[in-house]
Amino acid sequence: MGYTIQGFKASAVAAGLKKGGALDLALLYSEKEATAAGVFTTNLVKAAPVLLSREHIRDGKARAIVANAGNANACTGPQGMRDAQKTAELVSRRLGIHPEEVLVASTGVIGEPLDMNLITNAVVPLVESLQSSGLEDAAKAIMTTDSFPKTARFAGAAGGRPYEIVGMAKGAGMIMPNMATMLSFILTDISIDAHLLQNALQEGVEKTFNRTSVDGDTSTNDTVFALANGVAGNGPLSQEDRMEFARGLTRVMDDLARMIARDGEGATKFVTLELRGAASADDALQGARTVANSALVKTALYGRDPNWGRIMAALGRAGISMEESAMDIWIDDVQIVKGGLGCGKEAEEMAAKRMENDAFVIIIDMHVGIFAEKIYTCDLSHEYVSINADYRT
Amino acid sequence: MGYTIQGFKASAVAAGLKKGGALDLALLYSEKEATAAGVFTTNLVKAAPVLLSREHIRDGKARAIVANAGNANACTGPQGMRDAQKTAELVSRRLGIHPEEVLVASTGVIGEPLDMNLITNAVVPLVESLQSSGLEDAAKAIMTTDSFPKTARFAGAAGGRPYEIVGMAKGAGMIMPNMATMLSFILTDISIDAHLLQNALQEGVEKTFNRTSVDGDTSTNDTVFALANGVAGNGPLSQEDRMEFARGLTRVMDDLARMIARDGEGATKFVTLELRGAASADDALQGARTVANSALVKTALYGRDPNWGRIMAALGRAGISMEESAMDIWIDDVQIVKGGLGCGKEAEEMAAKRMENDAFVIIIDMHVGIFAEKIYTCDLSHEYVSINADYRT
Repeated sequence: MGYTIQGFKASAVAAGLKKGGALDLALLYSEKEATAAGVFTTNLVKAAPVLLSREHIRDGKARAIVANAGNANACTGPQGMRDAQKTAELVSRRLGIHPEEVLVASTGVIGEPLDMNLITNAVVPLVESLQSSGLEDAAKAIMTTDSFPKTARFAGAAGGRPYEIVGMAKGAGMIMPNMATMLSFILTDISIDAHLLQNALQEGVEKTFNRTSVDGDTSTNDTVFALANGVAGNGPLSQEDRMEFARGLTRVMDDLARMIARDGEGATKFVTLELRGAASADDALQGARTVANSALVKTALYGRDPNWGRIMAALGRAGISMEESAMDIWIDDVQIVKGGLGCGKEAEEMAAKRMENDAFVIIIDMHVGIFAEKIYTCDLSHEYVSINADYRT
Repeated sequence: MGYTIQGFKASAVAAGLKKGGALDLALLYSEKEATAAGVFTTNLVKAAPVLLSREHIRDGKARAIVANAGNANACTGPQGMRDAQKTAELVSRRLGIHPEEVLVASTGVIGEPLDMNLITNAVVPLVESLQSSGLEDAAKAIMTTDSFPKTARFAGAAGGRPYEIVGMAKGAGMIMPNMATMLSFILTDISIDAHLLQNALQEGVEKTFNRTSVDGDTSTNDTVFALANGVAGNGPLSQEDRMEFARGLTRVMDDLARMIARDGEGATKFVTLELRGAASADDALQGARTVANSALVKTALYGRDPNWGRIMAALGRAGISMEESAMDIWIDDVQIVKGGLGCGKEAEEMAAKRMENDAFVIIIDMHVGIFAEKIYTCDLSHEYVSINADYRT
């Protein structure tokens, strides 16, 4: 990312888990003990590294994150747990820290045992290549079907002392609110207690990653970690400091979430879906998600077709309050539905023009209440089908 | 269909609603007053013909069904209602019956006004070409992206008098339980009262069309009609007669539902998904639907990839009771998951062989209860994307 952050080092190696010799094992390391927070998948099927890291982070402290792509270590039973533990042990021994200080994350194919020989052989070079400029490579190593590494940064000040927040993420497929198939690791040099960090992380995840949808599938491995090493040297945080930090953390995750949607598997369009005028907060979210996950809406986005009938039909089956004759819909600045009826061919042609852009906004005003939601999503393309029909072959 | 049924006539013409001069307007006519039952979409956005037909069928009687493809007459406001009414009036006048005896159904693009000149001009030839052998053409006329007309037949006897049930359907896209984007019209010569017919129809729809999923989208126009003209001359139905009729009706709808899944937009695989061992009936249905609608599962089916990790992940996010270590999964006769773990490369290779067939069964045993469900579904292919990205252009 070009980004560095004081007190942290990172590295990545090609352990051989991905085909073709790409970077596939990443290490993030805090030179001193760091406050740690984590948010994990809500899927009942949780990968071994998720189960292990949930234990390791319970005390609010960590020193390292080791993450591999190429194999999810999910649906691998007791052997998978042993492999995740062994990964933490190998890394901790080499770093001279406790295994419980190591957080583990994996992404890739589900249901295949992790090749521990590859991990074992890679740990020495992985630790030896740790450097402050290693974050870019680490962001590359956690990619699966991602087409570019995703990093973001925020700079703030607390009690007069400047601090930074630097984050990375991988996304691309199995992406759906609650949470996306995604890993995200966030590093900051602020001094903050674990409880505040956890709260800020959870709130930020809810507003960002949990408002991102590529295909409506939720992964077994979703993990967001935040480590705060306190090197910035600020004292206890004032109320205002906390709010600024929470905003900054959310900003970093929002940037990453937008990149995840933009880089959705096979995506050709980045679409921000704004649903307004819903009867309740739940209705707003449910409605926005139903539209964003509709295969028919997503293929119309791909075809640059302002097919508002599919949006109306998706909302009509979303299980929310709706009045057909109250609906208004816009593509960017072009209104295509007014009072539940189409605005005509000319409006649709203008809207289709807007949809030729890489990114646009769909605004839906239901006019039955005051609640609003925003979802980042993308289209469903031939390429999505190709990627996912051939993923394991 | 080659099928005929005594006391009914049918016809179809090319009114010009579809591009390219294909049949697009169908008429089914009962020579005498028939008992009538109907089941309609649960989508809150209901097309005009749905709203109108719901009124016309309230008295349990009907004489005719007029159905067009090419335009859904949905999201068309008061003008759409007037157009649906006018369609019923034109047909009724020509047939010499009351407008309330005509049921109307439409399928096609949402949000565009119906071209009533085309309908008006087509009604005379439509009524004039009514004939007992017209059912096949009618089944063709209601097709949209369907690749073949769908018809089915059952022969039974009540009180010693033989009767028949003949059905037709269109499906292809926007297909999801509750209900599919589908029209289905069922004709029978049994004598049965409207209440019994309605109950049998609803139960059958629940077990068949509502267990069919192509893409998880529910249409604004879904309609199933059943007309019973009583020409078979049976007396009051015994308990046993009723049960046989319900079974026969369900059988006809089951045949049609299977054809709809087999002919899903772009489908290359017809997949029967059997979920067993769920903790409750709701869990069984929710679990089966979540797997059947997962874009990642569907693309794996297209790729003939027994990627059971995606099935596990879909169940894990379905919001149902699940124990990862209790899961068993088969493709046809090949077990690929036992106790939550993969059965190895050899099993997967055998399963991949089975998936080269046009049709196969996925059996999932969750082993947490005694409830089971079955869903008919299909894969998600490049062709699905092509069809739906270009549908209106």
